Amino acid sequence: MSAHFEDGKPVMVDVSHKLPTARMAVAEAVVWLPPAALAALNGGVGKGDALAVAELAGIMAAKRTSELIPLCHPLPLTSVKVTGVLTPPQVVFTATCKTSAQTGVEMEALTAAGVAALTLYDMLKAASKGMVIREIKLLSKEGGKSGPWTAAPTSDR
Amino acid sequence: MSAHFEDGKPVMVDVSHKLPTARMAVAEAVVWLPPAALAALNGGVGKGDALAVAELAGIMAAKRTSELIPLCHPLPLTSVKVTGVLTPPQVVFTATCKTSAQTGVEMEALTAAGVAALTLYDMLKAASKGMVIREIKLLSKEGGKSGPWTAAPTSDR
Amino acid sequence: MSAHFEDGKPVMVDVSHKLPTARMAVAEAVVWLPPAALAALNGGVGKGDALAVAELAGIMAAKRTSELIPLCHPLPLTSVKVTGVLTPPQVVFTATCKTSAQTGVEMEALTAAGVAALTLYDMLKAASKGMVIREIKLLSKEGGKSGPWTAAPTSDR
Amino acid sequence: MSAHFEDGKPVMVDVSHKLPTARMAVAEAVVWLPPAALAALNGGVGKGDALAVAELAGIMAAKRTSELIPLCHPLPLTSVKVTGVLTPPQVVFTATCKTSAQTGVEMEALTAAGVAALTLYDMLKAASKGMVIREIKLLSKEGGKSGPWTAAPTSDR
Amino acid sequence: MSAHFEDGKPVMVDVSHKLPTARMAVAEAVVWLPPAALAALNGGVGKGDALAVAELAGIMAAKRTSELIPLCHPLPLTSVKVTGVLTPPQVVFTATCKTSAQTGVEMEALTAAGVAALTLYDMLKAASKGMVIREIKLLSKEGGKSGPWTAAPTSDR
Amino acid sequence: MSAHFEDGKPVMVDVSHKLPTARMAVAEAVVWLPPAALAALNGGVGKGDALAVAELAGIMAAKRTSELIPLCHPLPLTSVKVTGVLTPPQVVFTATCKTSAQTGVEMEALTAAGVAALTLYDMLKAASKGMVIREIKLLSKEGGKSGPWTAAPTSDR
Repeated sequence: MSAHFEDGKPVMVDVSHKLPTARMAVAEAVVWLPPAALAALNGGVGKGDALAVAELAGIMAAKRTSELIPLCHPLPLTSVKVTGVLTPPQVVFTATCKTSAQTGVEMEALTAAGVAALTLYDMLKAASKGMVIREIKLLSKEGGKSGPWTAAPTSDR
Repeated sequence: MSAHFEDGKPVMVDVSHKLPTARMAVAEAVVWLPPAALAALNGGVGKGDALAVAELAGIMAAKRTSELIPLCHPLPLTSVKVTGVLTPPQVVFTATCKTSAQTGVEMEALTAAGVAALTLYDMLKAASKGMVIREIKLLSKEGGKSGPWTAAPTSDR
Repeated sequence: MSAHFEDGKPVMVDVSHKLPTARMAVAEAVVWLPPAALAALNGGVGKGDALAVAELAGIMAAKRTSELIPLCHPLPLTSVKVTGVLTPPQVVFTATCKTSAQTGVEMEALTAAGVAALTLYDMLKAASKGMVIREIKLLSKEGGKSGPWTAAPTSDR
Repeated sequence: MSAHFEDGKPVMVDVSHKLPTARMAVAEAVVWLPPAALAALNGGVGKGDALAVAELAGIMAAKRTSELIPLCHPLPLTSVKVTGVLTPPQVVFTATCKTSAQTGVEMEALTAAGVAALTLYDMLKAASKGMVIREIKLLSKEGGKSGPWTAAPTSDR
Repeated sequence: MSAHFEDGKPVMVDVSHKLPTARMAVAEAVVWLPPAALAALNGGVGKGDALAVAELAGIMAAKRTSELIPLCHPLPLTSVKVTGVLTPPQVVFTATCKTSAQTGVEMEALTAAGVAALTLYDMLKAASKGMVIREIKLLSKEGGKSGPWTAAPTSDR
Repeated sequence: MSAHFEDGKPVMVDVSHKLPTARMAVAEAVVWLPPAALAALNGGVGKGDALAVAELAGIMAAKRTSELIPLCHPLPLTSVKVTGVLTPPQVVFTATCKTSAQTGVEMEALTAAGVAALTLYDMLKAASKGMVIREIKLLSKEGGKSGPWTAAPTSDR
């Protein structure tokens, strides 16, 4: 099913026979904030600043995905955008990545969203350690042999 | 509330006046697997192997936390352990980090658990892109001025 | 004079016989902006945002100093702050680093200021490529065998 | 003016619609040396060695530009050359970078020159902390939509 | 003979005039194990696990080759496989790398094999520090101007 | 025997109960050069330069050991020296590392020597791909619970 193993050995899957095609992926990460963290984000810290730091951390993490995820191919990302929106009591980070390559950018989008969420946790943990990162998931992807894919709340899950 | 900002500027908080003390943190990340991903983990991929790769990725990510999280202090980790357990339809990664330092290792434990979860996603995404990482959270921490802390399902949250 | 070479070979100087002491260093980098870059910073881009991105890049670069500067010792930084101030037609970045270690943090402060300046260039280069980074220099340092040092416009230079 | 922000959010600009073209950029960094640093470079340290270490550090830094500059695209560099020339009381580092990509290599050349300069500072700082890095600037660039550009001492500045 | 130097200066060789072609390289590293290390691998540690950790470390190191080897070009690897086989008293790691680029992947394959060998040493050094890594060498390479090459035990050596 | 595994899981061994002590390790790597590579080192390339680049690469690699070797602890190195000596037809790299920490610096010394050897290969591979890195091994170590250790050609091996 997965080509990540050959004869029981993990491998970086051979994609050298594939042609590069346009790829896109969108992922999100949701951070649930207890009241103290929510108050810190709105008040003491400054909402814009903390979200901005988290967004930038997400962009930078996308570029390091192949260092973090052992079997990921290094990809020449051509676009990364991370947006954090506060909808109390949650912050939703949405990450969009693009490239032209032989493999997709799902892991880059997921890593960007995940690290943005971890960074927000770091910024607010003095207020509350009870924050929970939930729902890091792929929203959609385009390109590649398998074509477009969109998360379906009821079917695949 | 948070010392991560001074005059609206993000800073790596000054801890130079603190003495190093023993620190520990435990975090977990839960990955929900749709049936196709569960089947791949149990069958085609080999459960042990995929979990082992994810655990190792988590350990290595813990060491890179201060590169990923912009305002984290670099810490000399003295212990990192990541354990993945399959309880269908979920895999639960538990990460434990220790150090002797002026600040805690909460972010290291959360990063280790989070990257282990992202790595499992990568290993199984050929089977299903509908996996969801949920419940990345701190379970407990020890050491430091604020002392021990344990996640309480009903109080802080 | 310099211990960076032994028998003509570059070495990471042996400081294992020294005791860690409190260290601090302050450095600055000045970026001169042509009118088009100045207008972009004040208008199209948003002053606060571009400076904030540059400041954060400086903080993160400070943590990677020993990777960039071949003979620098890895140091456990305990404080990093980078502040960018616009005084038309210049932006002045001031970086302050602290640690407790056997060697000083001059290079960390200089690297933080320098990368902040490079990042500002990147943010504004679509408006003008004629920006010039000038005056990256150490302002002061404290701690260590040689004690405090302050830049003197007329004596040492 | 700059596409580095969308709706106030920093982004890695989307270049996925562009075709890769040949790119080149040349940048320089000038380090001013007080007499004690100059003497150390000429005498105790060995001129060739210190400049060689700085040049190599610049080449290696060029490859890490996208890690240091938050919104830089990762680029497959096809050529990097850094040359340091002593013209007392200054050392001038000139960095030339090339690639075939959707964006230019100005930041890579500036980063290479800047890190070479910082490395020279590190090698000579035992002799004098009064060195000043000045005039990190782009000299010229070729390729891309905006075509060739050359620094003009009197016009753009 | 080698283009790694121009006028006595080390350079990242200019390959911008070349067209990308398919490249492959295979390298091996042999680790000789004293009896105590061999016993630890077979018994206390668990053969599969230690070899698996080493193989994964080799794959990840291949992706960082251009960071480690100063004049190496960054390459978009399209395939990496590392296999460790125990033939008492030795473990032989074989690494295969592929890409489509202007330069070859010999250094990536050698680095993967070498770091896998170093990792095995780390895993077993509590049992014996007398292990020796020997015979890190290129087995074969394909692609590029010079065409295919295969190690010949008696001719080239 | 080895504490690198707990219940079959790889772990970064818990050393948090240990006190930091002075540590030192010396390792070597031998590169065998076919005639064409030897000629390139002596003639076309410039012996001093190629060895100097390799030595510097070794120093920088020592600082990245914990990134490359999955279960290595991050250590604050206080001294790194790498020396390459040509004894035709071989080059011998000797790496010495020191720190004050809870674990030893054997892996740092081995990594420094190994990467220096790989770098020399890279510099000379245009002349001959038949070079062989052999005999990467630990020469001696001091400090820690197990005390001093010296390689014995006949006993442990």
